[in-house]
Amino acid sequence: MQARGIHHLGVAVEDLDEALATYERLFGAELEHRATVPDQGVEAAAVRLGSGRVELLEPLGEETAVGRFLTKRGPGMHHVAYEVADVEAALATLSAAGADLIDEQPREGLFGLEVAFVHPDSVHGVLSEVVSPG
Amino acid sequence: MQARGIHHLGVAVEDLDEALATYERLFGAELEHRATVPDQGVEAAAVRLGSGRVELLEPLGEETAVGRFLTKRGPGMHHVAYEVADVEAALATLSAAGADLIDEQPREGLFGLEVAFVHPDSVHGVLSEVVSPG
Repeated sequence: MQARGIHHLGVAVEDLDEALATYERLFGAELEHRATVPDQGVEAAAVRLGSGRVELLEPLGEETAVGRFLTKRGPGMHHVAYEVADVEAALATLSAAGADLIDEQPREGLFGLEVAFVHPDSVHGVLSEVVSPG
Repeated sequence: MQARGIHHLGVAVEDLDEALATYERLFGAELEHRATVPDQGVEAAAVRLGSGRVELLEPLGEETAVGRFLTKRGPGMHHVAYEVADVEAALATLSAAGADLIDEQPREGLFGLEVAFVHPDSVHGVLSEVVSPG
């Protein structure tokens, strides 16, 4: 499987409004999407930095995935997402290569993306996502 | 200052050869550069994943910056680098915006890049680099 590029960097934050203001002020980031997604336990904003993209993730509670991450590690980089042509085909390749998949099937991610996550233990500690624009 | 995109994601690893093999096998990564840089305390490899780039960083010892990171946090994402047109101009903007700079002046980074780092406390826990291809 050939990743097409870095789709986004996912960052866990404590306060989404503050983080947005920081990325705008320091790096000229521009808001692309923003949504509260109770299903995934986050309020999220995607910002563009030129051709790059960062997803800022504020947990909706301590018992969400991102909430537990914040409690354990503090704010910071949470995952990296690689863009692929076809998430289902990517999962087949990843599985054949021995990767431990968190999602065995593609699922709907934030902002209408088709996504699946690979366990960080299979990628030297980096929680890695494959993404295809929906 | 307007970032042009994500130049690379920097990842701390325990074994560079193993990590390279993983990124090639799972994501079709292709080696772009590899070098041992005693000055910076790392053996490093830049790999391309389509239009994206990951820098894999193996510390040359426990007392290096990346070595201390590994001891404290374990392997995983270490920093993100944003490409800018001019690192010196970017530093002026960052400083005016109140960011805490690790490098007050541009310096030579890996692979001939001109770089400077911003303290993670100024970016909600994310060690952030600005980079201009040399």
